[in-house]
Amino acid sequence: MPPAAANIGVVGLAVMGSNLARNLASREGNTVAIFNRSRAKTDELVTAHPEAGFLPTFSYQEFADSLQKPRTAIIMVKAGAGTDAVIDELVKVFEPGDIIVDGGNAYFPDTIRREKTVRATGINFVGAGISGGEEGALTGPSIMPGGSDESWVTLGPILRSIAAIAEGEPCVTHVGHDGAGHFVKMVHNGIEYADMQLIAEAYDLIRRGTGKTPAEIAEIFAEWNRGELESYLIEITAEVLRQVDAATGAPLVDVILDQAGAKGTGAWTVQTALALGVPVSGIAEATFARSLSSHPEQRAVAAILPGPDEEFTVSDEAAFIEDVRLALYASKIVAYSQGFDEIRTGAAEYGWNIDLGAISKIWRGGCIIRAQFLNRIADAYAETPDLPVLMTAPYFAEAIGRAQSAWRRVVVAAAQAGIPAPAFSSSLSYYDGIRADRLPAALVQGQRDFFGAHTYKRIDKPGTFHTQWSGDRTEIEAEDTH
Amino acid sequence: MPPAAANIGVVGLAVMGSNLARNLASREGNTVAIFNRSRAKTDELVTAHPEAGFLPTFSYQEFADSLQKPRTAIIMVKAGAGTDAVIDELVKVFEPGDIIVDGGNAYFPDTIRREKTVRATGINFVGAGISGGEEGALTGPSIMPGGSDESWVTLGPILRSIAAIAEGEPCVTHVGHDGAGHFVKMVHNGIEYADMQLIAEAYDLIRRGTGKTPAEIAEIFAEWNRGELESYLIEITAEVLRQVDAATGAPLVDVILDQAGAKGTGAWTVQTALALGVPVSGIAEATFARSLSSHPEQRAVAAILPGPDEEFTVSDEAAFIEDVRLALYASKIVAYSQGFDEIRTGAAEYGWNIDLGAISKIWRGGCIIRAQFLNRIADAYAETPDLPVLMTAPYFAEAIGRAQSAWRRVVVAAAQAGIPAPAFSSSLSYYDGIRADRLPAALVQGQRDFFGAHTYKRIDKPGTFHTQWSGDRTEIEAEDTH
Repeated sequence: MPPAAANIGVVGLAVMGSNLARNLASREGNTVAIFNRSRAKTDELVTAHPEAGFLPTFSYQEFADSLQKPRTAIIMVKAGAGTDAVIDELVKVFEPGDIIVDGGNAYFPDTIRREKTVRATGINFVGAGISGGEEGALTGPSIMPGGSDESWVTLGPILRSIAAIAEGEPCVTHVGHDGAGHFVKMVHNGIEYADMQLIAEAYDLIRRGTGKTPAEIAEIFAEWNRGELESYLIEITAEVLRQVDAATGAPLVDVILDQAGAKGTGAWTVQTALALGVPVSGIAEATFARSLSSHPEQRAVAAILPGPDEEFTVSDEAAFIEDVRLALYASKIVAYSQGFDEIRTGAAEYGWNIDLGAISKIWRGGCIIRAQFLNRIADAYAETPDLPVLMTAPYFAEAIGRAQSAWRRVVVAAAQAGIPAPAFSSSLSYYDGIRADRLPAALVQGQRDFFGAHTYKRIDKPGTFHTQWSGDRTEIEAEDTH
Repeated sequence: MPPAAANIGVVGLAVMGSNLARNLASREGNTVAIFNRSRAKTDELVTAHPEAGFLPTFSYQEFADSLQKPRTAIIMVKAGAGTDAVIDELVKVFEPGDIIVDGGNAYFPDTIRREKTVRATGINFVGAGISGGEEGALTGPSIMPGGSDESWVTLGPILRSIAAIAEGEPCVTHVGHDGAGHFVKMVHNGIEYADMQLIAEAYDLIRRGTGKTPAEIAEIFAEWNRGELESYLIEITAEVLRQVDAATGAPLVDVILDQAGAKGTGAWTVQTALALGVPVSGIAEATFARSLSSHPEQRAVAAILPGPDEEFTVSDEAAFIEDVRLALYASKIVAYSQGFDEIRTGAAEYGWNIDLGAISKIWRGGCIIRAQFLNRIADAYAETPDLPVLMTAPYFAEAIGRAQSAWRRVVVAAAQAGIPAPAFSSSLSYYDGIRADRLPAALVQGQRDFFGAHTYKRIDKPGTFHTQWSGDRTEIEAEDTH
């Protein structure tokens, strides 16, 4: 048996796995063992990248033998049953103290389950969200690992060596125990859905309001990217809008079928938020907007439904575009505020000690939602670590206060013009709801008490009450059955 | 052993179970065996209601022996582990061909699981949604049973005998196999959330727009209840708004704490819709509005966020109130259209043969969302059973077309005034989205292709494509990785 020469291993050599392995191999001090279910992929990678000095292995036993202790392996296979199958094999050949990392896009309850099962063998299991796509895996992703403190001792330096760097800091932190990493990655993706939908609404409003071409709107986004909206998604929006289709000479965006796909992480984020009782309306509307777009049979019959009689015209184009920019910024603040609310609430629910400021920092590089803006979130949590509503931090409260008139004008214009702006509108409704002195939820409680004896609380004294609606309508103290 | 004298049994004698047992006992030809875990409740019910002629039993064996074959028992216990425990006991004393009905508020995947397990013993298992609260259980609920065709032969006449009657028809139908009944009951509750939230928004807008008192607004709802909005929820809204608090002399709605509770069925409806890819934004916003209201610690800090500078004033009160009425009606049509979309999609997913028109008919009586309006839904599905979007049926398309200008004015007023109207706004966004000729989802697909090589389809030819964004930006045909 040759000496164990590798300090890290990668199982699963599809594009993400290969790129991550190459990234690892390129860093000083790393020797990378690789394994793939089919031998061909392993041979291919070794041949294509001799500079990486990979240690190819062809069985789980050989893979384990090639790793220094504590053995550390990153699984990069398609999330689901495949992940469980690889874990089962690794558990057979690994020893207590070793570390198995799942770098796939696992659903966090699966990660919690797997961590519990694997931990019972004495082996560490770490679910790590990795964001940045194929390119990020190769050059530096944003990494969100969960798992034990013990595993972090070995894993920390390795992950820091391959992560993206933002303002001198590697985009990785030990998020929290067991499923915390995949939970935070899930919310990251949910925020990404909202961000993209908000950009799409901004584009649609400008296009339909001003008649500008995609190429002209690309210049607007490029301009926005030099201001407070500066971000990867704004940057690539300009690139996409600028692109001309070679076959037709038309803007590519006009040739692309307007049906948005989804891989489920947006839905997970909203489903989890519903279970936690966190209103993430911006992410929900973004997720629904994709579903709605993907039902051509419904859209075909609904095309008969009438819109407004009046033509939509914007009198002052520059002012309208600036309004849209401010509406986008305000809605984006709401989306992040809701996303961080979900992380804060999830952490409390699952007993994770998550540093919200650190999360915003590791999203500054490598991942899809990377943006200047995240520094302001880090500042907010540095000042008030347990801030209950992110957008109430002074910087955001000022920004949203400055934007709100424009934001309202844009939501008004969309409603009048018959242009769907679900994320802009729902963000504004959330804003007006959470700041409201008094909500009509009191009427809802009254209705619930009427038809279901669900009881209510009073503003003027403690206790739980019920009005005997079908009797003499006097009030009685009641057991709390909310 | 006495002869088996009962044709139906009830297990679980809390308020819902007792009332359902009394309802059953009051119908010609029924003799009702009853059983409760603690003996006291059984004795109490027998003593309190000698007219019912209950057959009290004190063990599962005695309960089974008292039932004619095929034995039919309705379980009325709190949903969850308690249900499983009762099923386990009944399976021990029942025989193949017997029927166990779960009348609790089970989550439909649990019902699917239970049906499968129980069916393996040869016993029928029926998950039946029962709506109408305590009062409905006693006097006539709306009943949504799933389960096998075999069980329906025995169960049908019994359930028809106790259901509410609407226009001469009992409010019960065999919804579909296994979990179909609880699925439809879940969506019923989700629609109920939307209905209530829409009413709450209408009330809030009128109050803040006109300064009318709750008692005055009660009269408006009473008036609305004589028109196309006629429904139980509108009726009780007038009752709640009319109620004066004895202790303070203030309107009760002003004394009730404005934090709305929830028991989870709204969240289930939205979580399920997300899994099915059905946009149910009205239900989602209603569910989120309750969550938002229930976080006083967040609302306290968010109270610093600024609203519009201008005071909200309505120049023509009568016109504004009529606008709100039309906005409510249009948004309600959207909420039902979305809810029926979820049932239609769920039926396809789970292989249930659900008659959507029959569902709308059994909701006309007994349940919380009972309304005239449901006849129009029945008409729509009678005309086009596989209608892909309910609101495109002629009656609704006309109604919504008539309402849309008013609806837009109300959403505009809410945005300008800083009054949260999440369900009104999101319904309008959905309406404008589904009827849109072209959606900015094309840009979203372009972004997804840029950062994740997720590919796109083209409007002008079949196939799946990818632009080599980080290369020479030419387009290639690609594997579909949506």
